Amino acid sequence: MVNVLFSAKPASWDEYEAPLHAAFEKACIDAQLGTDLPPEDVDYIVYAPSGPVSDFTPFTKLKAVLSLWAGVETMVDNPTLHVPLCRMVDHGLTESMVEWVTGHVLRYHLGMDRFITAQDGVWRAGSAAPLARDRKVCVLGLGALGSACAQSLVHLKFDVHGWSRSPKAVEGVTCHHGDAGLRDALADADMVALLLPDTPATESVLNAESISFMRRGGFVVNPGRGPLIDDDALLAALDSGQLAHATLDVFRVEPLPKDHPFWAHPKVTVTPHIAAETKAGTASEVIAENIRRGEAGKPFLHLVDRQAGY
Amino acid sequence: MVNVLFSAKPASWDEYEAPLHAAFEKACIDAQLGTDLPPEDVDYIVYAPSGPVSDFTPFTKLKAVLSLWAGVETMVDNPTLHVPLCRMVDHGLTESMVEWVTGHVLRYHLGMDRFITAQDGVWRAGSAAPLARDRKVCVLGLGALGSACAQSLVHLKFDVHGWSRSPKAVEGVTCHHGDAGLRDALADADMVALLLPDTPATESVLNAESISFMRRGGFVVNPGRGPLIDDDALLAALDSGQLAHATLDVFRVEPLPKDHPFWAHPKVTVTPHIAAETKAGTASEVIAENIRRGEAGKPFLHLVDRQAGY
Repeated sequence: MVNVLFSAKPASWDEYEAPLHAAFEKACIDAQLGTDLPPEDVDYIVYAPSGPVSDFTPFTKLKAVLSLWAGVETMVDNPTLHVPLCRMVDHGLTESMVEWVTGHVLRYHLGMDRFITAQDGVWRAGSAAPLARDRKVCVLGLGALGSACAQSLVHLKFDVHGWSRSPKAVEGVTCHHGDAGLRDALADADMVALLLPDTPATESVLNAESISFMRRGGFVVNPGRGPLIDDDALLAALDSGQLAHATLDVFRVEPLPKDHPFWAHPKVTVTPHIAAETKAGTASEVIAENIRRGEAGKPFLHLVDRQAGY
Repeated sequence: MVNVLFSAKPASWDEYEAPLHAAFEKACIDAQLGTDLPPEDVDYIVYAPSGPVSDFTPFTKLKAVLSLWAGVETMVDNPTLHVPLCRMVDHGLTESMVEWVTGHVLRYHLGMDRFITAQDGVWRAGSAAPLARDRKVCVLGLGALGSACAQSLVHLKFDVHGWSRSPKAVEGVTCHHGDAGLRDALADADMVALLLPDTPATESVLNAESISFMRRGGFVVNPGRGPLIDDDALLAALDSGQLAHATLDVFRVEPLPKDHPFWAHPKVTVTPHIAAETKAGTASEVIAENIRRGEAGKPFLHLVDRQAGY
């Protein structure tokens, strides 16, 4: 019998209780699962930072913290956390991210907005888009999400460049890395998609200088993390015409405050952190598999390197 | 020496003259190419119905008509045409069609329009889309264009069904055919994309009855041919809520007349026949290859079955 504490928002418990029980049963895990177990009995915590637990000290026999979130930046520097921390890598989440990024890149590529917003009776012949093969798209971040998005764009024949802090190889993608590679990755890019983790090293990676590397009139999509963008530099680039438009799903403060200039800016589309959601069914299977591994003394999936921050 | 007459709009000649010469040279074809050759000398006509030729009788030694258009419905029943007619199947055209169809299907899937049109400062959390795997998309028409679009949607994990008049097999696509198969193809579909040729047998394939097979609140995209849709039935279905929205790129009359109800309808997006364009460079290579084949006595590529109409 393992004791599994679920510590997230109450609404999440409603969503996860049944799928977690089903996943445990399928993985033959005999678990006591609840939202209110004695801390000293808890073996694993299924965790979101939006839940009640922030001090892990009372959990004296804790074996691992299993995050429900892909981004763990608010967990890695918790000084009371001394056991393995695992990120959520959920194929449902990856799929929804691929769909969102591919959709918004195609939206910009095809110039959809003018047709959606202006049905003025004018037949604008000759306004066809160029081919995707003639558009450079840069994906910043080549982890599970970034590389899946990059490959979806490769399949549509976009000229896809990728960038990561350390060297990576993704089939069909021209990969760049490190500080020195950022300029080449962004050089003359028509679009950039941000899919980096939020770490001190990636903060404001899209700033006045890096935006200036892109092709004038370029597009930005950010389904990654809010702090990856220097908001003031983004607004200045939109106003100067260096950027034509940005679609932002994540922000430094969420929900995005009602008076934030992004809401009213004619060249910004705000979406409410919907690009990628963990899906309870598939995520519960990942949690169950990691508990099975923990109990069998096998290495955890998606273990966080707390030094690197992801 | 072969004599090749170019018969299309003058603007097309400006676009095609250099690419055709380049393609002939690359294929080692010694050609006399022009817009005004004596009819009795002409071996091949590079043809669009928008050009000056409609009576082929004076072309007494004509070997083939090579269409610049993918849709040949205005050519097949020309009673003066007694030589092989070849359709244009241009990979640039296929790519742009795939991009347009994939983009608009993702636009509907992700519910983009409300975010593009309403930036009202309200953070609508929990408005994420389901996964593509939980959406049924029906592609009507499984020729070169339809099957390429279907496969792009399969790659994004949509539940893709296809329909064609005669049986076809496309990897990853649940294929239906014939009058009896149309109902299953459309049953509970969230979206339908029309990519059939325009023939007497396909006219108004999307009508009140076939629309009623779809899931209530479904979406239509038509980059194929205008007459595939019964316009009045489409408008009625949009007004009743059986359909949520339609994006139409082709129409029974083009340019779409300014007073046509599609322009003003809040649930219709009109695009000006831009989904797929023949690209002069790649199309010229197809033309050159067919002349090479004709001169070598080999079967033509993309030969039209004039009985079937495509």
